[in-house]
Amino acid sequence: MLHSNISVNAAGHLTFAGFDTVALAEEFGTPLYLLDENRLRENCRTYASSMREYYGGCSMALFASKALSFKGIYRIAAEEGLGADVVSSGELYTALKAGFPAERIYFHGNNKTDEDIRYGVESGIGCFIVDGYEELEALGRIASGLGKTQDILLRLTPGIDPHTFEAVNTGRLDCQFGVPLVGQGMNFVKTALSTPGVRLRGFHCHIGSQIFDWIPFRDASDIMLDFMAEAKKTLGFETEVLNLGGGFGIRYTEADPVIDIGAQIAKTAEHVKARCAELGLALPAVLMEPGRSIVADAGMTIYTVGSIKTIGEGYTNFVSVDGGMSDNPRYALYQAPYTVALASRANDPADFPCTVAGRCCESGALIQENVCLPRPVRGEKLAVFCTGAYNYSMASNYNRLPRPPIVMLTADGPKVAVRRETFEDLTACDI
Amino acid sequence: MLHSNISVNAAGHLTFAGFDTVALAEEFGTPLYLLDENRLRENCRTYASSMREYYGGCSMALFASKALSFKGIYRIAAEEGLGADVVSSGELYTALKAGFPAERIYFHGNNKTDEDIRYGVESGIGCFIVDGYEELEALGRIASGLGKTQDILLRLTPGIDPHTFEAVNTGRLDCQFGVPLVGQGMNFVKTALSTPGVRLRGFHCHIGSQIFDWIPFRDASDIMLDFMAEAKKTLGFETEVLNLGGGFGIRYTEADPVIDIGAQIAKTAEHVKARCAELGLALPAVLMEPGRSIVADAGMTIYTVGSIKTIGEGYTNFVSVDGGMSDNPRYALYQAPYTVALASRANDPADFPCTVAGRCCESGALIQENVCLPRPVRGEKLAVFCTGAYNYSMASNYNRLPRPPIVMLTADGPKVAVRRETFEDLTACDI
Repeated sequence: MLHSNISVNAAGHLTFAGFDTVALAEEFGTPLYLLDENRLRENCRTYASSMREYYGGCSMALFASKALSFKGIYRIAAEEGLGADVVSSGELYTALKAGFPAERIYFHGNNKTDEDIRYGVESGIGCFIVDGYEELEALGRIASGLGKTQDILLRLTPGIDPHTFEAVNTGRLDCQFGVPLVGQGMNFVKTALSTPGVRLRGFHCHIGSQIFDWIPFRDASDIMLDFMAEAKKTLGFETEVLNLGGGFGIRYTEADPVIDIGAQIAKTAEHVKARCAELGLALPAVLMEPGRSIVADAGMTIYTVGSIKTIGEGYTNFVSVDGGMSDNPRYALYQAPYTVALASRANDPADFPCTVAGRCCESGALIQENVCLPRPVRGEKLAVFCTGAYNYSMASNYNRLPRPPIVMLTADGPKVAVRRETFEDLTACDI
Repeated sequence: MLHSNISVNAAGHLTFAGFDTVALAEEFGTPLYLLDENRLRENCRTYASSMREYYGGCSMALFASKALSFKGIYRIAAEEGLGADVVSSGELYTALKAGFPAERIYFHGNNKTDEDIRYGVESGIGCFIVDGYEELEALGRIASGLGKTQDILLRLTPGIDPHTFEAVNTGRLDCQFGVPLVGQGMNFVKTALSTPGVRLRGFHCHIGSQIFDWIPFRDASDIMLDFMAEAKKTLGFETEVLNLGGGFGIRYTEADPVIDIGAQIAKTAEHVKARCAELGLALPAVLMEPGRSIVADAGMTIYTVGSIKTIGEGYTNFVSVDGGMSDNPRYALYQAPYTVALASRANDPADFPCTVAGRCCESGALIQENVCLPRPVRGEKLAVFCTGAYNYSMASNYNRLPRPPIVMLTADGPKVAVRRETFEDLTACDI
């Protein structure tokens, strides 16, 4: 199967993390998000140990929690020695409520409000990643007003296009994030160094998602290290922290490569260390921000099939399930590829070409087009693989569909980590 | 301005339904959804009175509540004499909790679960719009089991492409909704007529959204009326209800036409009546299902500007606001056009070309590209027009952003209709 935590049991049912997904669907209902705790922890450890081993010092991985944010995930990330990257007060609140150590939290975002800034500073978070001048001014003012000095990194756009798809490509200059390194970056540093209430520790860049190779990280680090050398030379500023952003790609389908993340980090680290030596720079603490590659392949969604529509020769067959763009908007948004399987008969020949549609009332509300399944019947269970990232976190109540629960598959059995929404929840804010 | 409920006051602030939007933003915070109650009711009345006047009998408009579902909107739709189209148990629950008369509720959807069906039948809703064979079987079985006979319409796909954009074009054959009229429709009718527990009342079709002309409705009605004549001739079935689906388009930008909805309904009705006479059919009760055109121009969203990023000659300028694809995913999904304005200085020259970005952490999380505004500063308020439809209903907590409140602008002043979510709400389901 696509990942080692996916298999088929003697009953022909798909298993995930060793659990029968059809039995889980019957016990917890559908749609159902599953999370493989062991895989989650393995993924955390891969980054944590590689960053420690290959960079040493205070280098570490921050879990980019926009990929999946709920209390339980911060507990796991904390236990596995990761930091956390949060992008809003809501994520920060969730992390803090889960007991995540504030000093390991990095606050991201192109548009932090004064309220966000105040909340972060008062909570004693480790670092703000300052996105622009307005934020720098507001953060300096607010931290000073609170009698604090806040550690910061500056977000710079190195202008790299790693050839990923546009919506998640943020390394290029022409985006809403960060300050362009070329032309504006050094002035941003100067301004930060003279802003009271903040202490500049270093720089951040983010070049995109679904990167399967270390080369874009090499290119980004080259640009950033040259900039650091220039900052040292012209401003006497010694960079302590270099945050290279993002993580590596994950395997949504058989078409995606298998990668050895540790080996890619090793190669990047070797390059960074060599370049630092050449440039006469002390090796900074290097950070990465994996989100997708921590949680994606630890997730699976189980649906129940409701209808099978065959129109005729030359037309698409449609298999409709009981969730859809409300719990996974990524196909509607990006035509994102996913692997699907009929969980109820996972060994049967997949000879029915079809499009898997959700239950939301619009034509674009599809899960995946042009796949092959055993021809299902109403009531059978269908699985979508690798849904741990950007599914629950992007889920809506479109069509007033309650958001599914997250069931964590642990060594002690399945445990509800996020309960299913009720109809009462849906109307909780209605006056 | 784009719509008659939008203006500018002496302070240069944008007004909506006569209220100062900057003052509303200060009172209720941002992001903020506003709803103009008077415009809502006017839009309801346009449909209600036109359907009554031009078709007569039991003809009526059903509010397609997937466009905007919360308790208050069902109260208004009920008071204005509309029925309601719901697509899930969650919408049904909300309508019933708001006191909406069950007999005026029509239950739609390509994939109703057995639980949905049971809930609808037990609640005594007026009609199910049956989407396919599996639903027909399940509904017959469940209604029979409850000792009830449920009124139904059958959803047929007439195979019309009204040249709207693909995601909302559901009249074509190749979609997950309904049974193809040609080839399969008559057998579907036969099956329905012999299914215990259901009483067939007529047919439904839906040809798409953002239709600015009666011609697609004429074409759809021609196909449906021919089918009805055939059903009468071959099966002796007299159609009582013809549901033509959808409503008319709305004006998101100055590029969209101004239309007289009453006049379009009048023309369609004249045509339907003439065709019924020609075909020897009794005029059925005709239904329409406007959603967007009831609520869109009654809505406006107010944001606070957080950062203004200028990269340089040849690059885009970015204005970032404190909401985004979490409260309005329609640009990310469809590159949907919207009109934006700087609410704080609505009369100032709009000479700053820019892209309005949200605060969600991905490049595609934009509100609108390539617009012109007066160059804003942090703290000023920005308005997006015509956000009443498919904004709140599609909103998520992506990046753990709380969903904004809906403030209803009434003759008695602004009133919170849906309260703002809190951080506690965000973690309410976390174990």
